[in-house]
Amino acid sequence: MTKRTFGVIGLAVMGENLALNVESRGFPIAVYNRTASKTEEFMKTRAQGKDVKAAYSLEEFVKVLEQPRKILVMVKAGKPVDAVIEDLKPLLDKGDMIIDGGNSLYEDTERRTQYLESTGLGFVGMGVSGGEEGALKGPSLMPGGTKAAYKELEPILTKIAAQVDDGPCVTFVGPGGAGHYVKMVHNGIEYGDMQLIAEAYDIMKNALGLSNQELHEVFAKWNTTDELNSFLIEITADIFKNIDPESNKALLDLILDSAGQKGTGRWTIVTSLELGVPIPTMYAAVNARVMSSYKDERISASKQLTGSTIEFKGNVSEFVDKVRDALYCSKICSYAQGMALIAKASTEYYNGEISLPESSRIWKGGCIIRAGFLDKIKKAFVDNPSLPNLLLAPEFKQTILDRQDAWREVLVLASQAGIPVPAFSASLDYFDSYRRANLPQNLTQAQRDYFGAHTYERIDKPRGEFFHTEWAS
Amino acid sequence: MTKRTFGVIGLAVMGENLALNVESRGFPIAVYNRTASKTEEFMKTRAQGKDVKAAYSLEEFVKVLEQPRKILVMVKAGKPVDAVIEDLKPLLDKGDMIIDGGNSLYEDTERRTQYLESTGLGFVGMGVSGGEEGALKGPSLMPGGTKAAYKELEPILTKIAAQVDDGPCVTFVGPGGAGHYVKMVHNGIEYGDMQLIAEAYDIMKNALGLSNQELHEVFAKWNTTDELNSFLIEITADIFKNIDPESNKALLDLILDSAGQKGTGRWTIVTSLELGVPIPTMYAAVNARVMSSYKDERISASKQLTGSTIEFKGNVSEFVDKVRDALYCSKICSYAQGMALIAKASTEYYNGEISLPESSRIWKGGCIIRAGFLDKIKKAFVDNPSLPNLLLAPEFKQTILDRQDAWREVLVLASQAGIPVPAFSASLDYFDSYRRANLPQNLTQAQRDYFGAHTYERIDKPRGEFFHTEWAS
Repeated sequence: MTKRTFGVIGLAVMGENLALNVESRGFPIAVYNRTASKTEEFMKTRAQGKDVKAAYSLEEFVKVLEQPRKILVMVKAGKPVDAVIEDLKPLLDKGDMIIDGGNSLYEDTERRTQYLESTGLGFVGMGVSGGEEGALKGPSLMPGGTKAAYKELEPILTKIAAQVDDGPCVTFVGPGGAGHYVKMVHNGIEYGDMQLIAEAYDIMKNALGLSNQELHEVFAKWNTTDELNSFLIEITADIFKNIDPESNKALLDLILDSAGQKGTGRWTIVTSLELGVPIPTMYAAVNARVMSSYKDERISASKQLTGSTIEFKGNVSEFVDKVRDALYCSKICSYAQGMALIAKASTEYYNGEISLPESSRIWKGGCIIRAGFLDKIKKAFVDNPSLPNLLLAPEFKQTILDRQDAWREVLVLASQAGIPVPAFSASLDYFDSYRRANLPQNLTQAQRDYFGAHTYERIDKPRGEFFHTEWAS
Repeated sequence: MTKRTFGVIGLAVMGENLALNVESRGFPIAVYNRTASKTEEFMKTRAQGKDVKAAYSLEEFVKVLEQPRKILVMVKAGKPVDAVIEDLKPLLDKGDMIIDGGNSLYEDTERRTQYLESTGLGFVGMGVSGGEEGALKGPSLMPGGTKAAYKELEPILTKIAAQVDDGPCVTFVGPGGAGHYVKMVHNGIEYGDMQLIAEAYDIMKNALGLSNQELHEVFAKWNTTDELNSFLIEITADIFKNIDPESNKALLDLILDSAGQKGTGRWTIVTSLELGVPIPTMYAAVNARVMSSYKDERISASKQLTGSTIEFKGNVSEFVDKVRDALYCSKICSYAQGMALIAKASTEYYNGEISLPESSRIWKGGCIIRAGFLDKIKKAFVDNPSLPNLLLAPEFKQTILDRQDAWREVLVLASQAGIPVPAFSASLDYFDSYRRANLPQNLTQAQRDYFGAHTYERIDKPRGEFFHTEWAS
C-alpha cells in the first residue's frame, strides 16, 4: 500500500464526511478514531471500496502518512483538541501539520498555533461550514494559522471546497486564530439571518394572516429574487410544505418554539464588546433564542399580559413586499455589522491580514449563509477597499434609501400589533444611529460628568481636550 | 494614641472620601498610600483636625490598627488589588479582614475570597455606588464574601451608608463575589436608565421640537412624579439649565456626543449570555455608547444616508406624557431584566443567598439609580418571593397594560421620524416576547434540524423527547 496523502482523526459524522470528500477527489487517506469499533464500522460501511486505510493506534496512523504529514482533527472543540495535540506531538516530525476543523474558540486556536509553531510543526485552525452535506460534497472552508502549512494543504483544500463562479470557497484567512474568528462571525451572521426570517414569518403569519401554503409561496418567490436568493430562504420555503405523517398537520406547527444554540453566537457578542464594534442585530438574534427558551414562563405570562392586537386592513400582497424590503434592509445592516467586526479584528488581532472581499467570496458557496447577495458584498469591498461600512457602498446605500419607508412601515405595524421584532428594530436603530451626525449621548456625557466627574469633550474644542463642570447648583 | 478602628489603603478621591466618612461617624482611622506625598497632602488638608493617623509603611499601618484589623482597600481594580493583598497578607493575623471597595470583576472577588478565607483571613468584596459625594456623605454599599467579617464590619458600614426610611443602604449580599455581582448589575441598570433618558430627550428635542428650557421643565415635572422621581431625572433637569459662561450657550449643546464607558456594562452583558438571561435593554444601552463613539463615521454617513423626516402634527404636551409613559414602561422592563439576572446568578453562583428585596432596598439611597421606584420593586418581591419576573407583579403589570398604547405610539413616531430608540424598542420587544405563548422559533428549530440535524421538540409530545426529520425532498 502506498503512503497516505491525508489523515483524519475523529470519525463522527463531520469527520467521516470530510474524509470521504478528500478521498473522492483522488487523495489516499488514513483514518483513526479513539474507539476502534467506530473505525471498524466505518470501514465496513461507508469506506467500503474506497482508498482508505484504517489505523488502530496513533503510531500506526502517523507511520502510514506521507511526509510532511497532513492531519485533520475532527473532535469536539475544547479540551479534546488539546488532548489529541498532546498525543500526536511526540509522534510528528518537523514540518508536519495539524488542522483543527472543529468550532474552536479563536483564542484557543491562537494559543495552539503559537505552541505548535514554536516546536516546528504547522497548525491550521479551519472553520468548516455547510453541515453534514456540505462536508461531504463541498463546504466553505476558513483556514488560518501557519501560512506555510496552508500552502501545502492548498491543493487538497481547493478540491474539497464548494466551487463557485470565482473559484473554490477557501482562502488563507490569516494568521493565528483568524480562520476560526471568521467562522465565528459567519455563525453570528447566520443567527441574524435566521432571526430576521423568523420575524418576517411571524409578521406575515400573525399580522397578515398568511397560511403555510401562502408562506411557502412567498419564500419560494423571494428565493428567485436577486437580493434574497439564498440557502436559508430556500429551506424555509421547503419547511412550510412539510406535512407530519402522524397527524397530517404542517410539521412546522408542531415544533416547539424553544431554540437551542451552541456558543459561537455568544462568542461573537463578547468579542464585539471587547473590540467596540456594534452588532445589535446579531445580539438581538442570540437573545431571541434565549428568550424563546423561557417557554413555561411565556405561557404563564401570556395569560396575564394582554397586549395590543390590531386587525390588518391594508393590501396583504403589497404589505408582503414591504416585509421583504424590511428583511432585506435589516439583512444589509446585519452584514454591515459582521464585516465591520471582521475588519476591526483584522486590524487589532491579525495585522490587517484578513481580506474582506475574500471573506465574503468564500461564503458564496458551501456554507449556511451562502447567497447571491455575498457577491455584492465582495464587489463592494473590491471597488472600495477602505469602505468604512457596507451601508455606504453605492448599491446598498441606494437600496436602503429606496426601501426605508417600507421598512419603517413594517416596524410600525409590528409595534401596533404587539409582534416582537427585535432584529428588525435593532437593524433600523443601527441604521438610524449610524446616519446621525449628532446622537443624544451629549446628555449621557453630561450626566457622567455630573455624578462621577468623568469629564467630557466639546464640539467647539479640539478632540482630546477634556472638561469638567461643577454641575450641582 | 489609641489603636485605630478602621484602616484605608489608597487615597484617591473615593478612598479619601470613604475614610473621612468613617471618621465622621466617630471611628478613629489610619490611612496609607503607596506614594507618601499623597498621604502628607491629605493629612495637611482634608484630614486636618480629624481623628486620622497616617502610616508611611504597611508595617506601621497594621501596627496601629486594633484587632481584628479592618482594612478597606481602595485601589484600581485588577492587578493592583492582588498586589496590595500579597503585600498585606504576611503582616496580618487570623481573623483580620480586607475589604475591596473598588469595581472589581465578581470572578476576581470570588477567587480572592477563597484564597484569603483558606488562610484564616476574612475578605469582603464590596460594591460602592454614589460617586464622590456619596462616598463622603453616604453611599449605597453592596458587600459580599466572608459573612463573619461582614458581621464585624456591620456597625461601621451601617453608619457610613446612606440612610433611607427602612434602614441603612447596606446588607450582606451573599458569599464570594455576590457583592460585586450586584454592583455590576446596578451599573448595567444605570446604563439602561441613562440611555432611556437620552432617547426620551432625543424624541422630545428632535421630533417634538422642545427647547432646553422646556426640556428642563419636563424633567423637573417628571421628577415630582411617584414613578420617575429619581437622582438621574433630577440631574437631567439640572443639566438643561446650565449655561456655558464662555459662549453663553446651553452647555449641553456644546458637549460632544461620544460616550465613554468603564467595563461593568460589558461585564453585565457577558454574564447574562453565560447565564442565559435576556437583558436586551442593557445591551442596547451599552451598544448605544459604542455607536456614539463612531463620531467621525457618523458625520460622514449623515451626508449620504438621508432618512425619514416627518413633521410632528399632534398635540406636543399630550405627546410628552406619552414619552413619559414609554420611558416608564421601558424602565420597568430594564429592571425586570436586571432583577431576573440577579435571581439567576443567585441560584447558579451564590446558593440562592442573594435577596431580591434587600438588593432593591439598598439601592433606594446613596447610589446613582436611587429612586422611589425601587421601593415598589422591593415590595413586589416581598409580596411574592417567588415572582418569576417583575412584569408580573400586580402594580407593574397594571402600569404597562394601562400605558402600552402610549408606549407603542412613541415607537411608531420614532420609526417614522428616523430617530434611533434602541433601548425603547429593545424594551418593547422584551415585553412583547415575554408575553407570547408562541414565538416564531419553531421555524428556527426547523431550520437547524434541516441543515444541521440538531433535532427539535414537539408541542404534542413531552418535553425532552427529540425528533429529527429528513427535510430535503
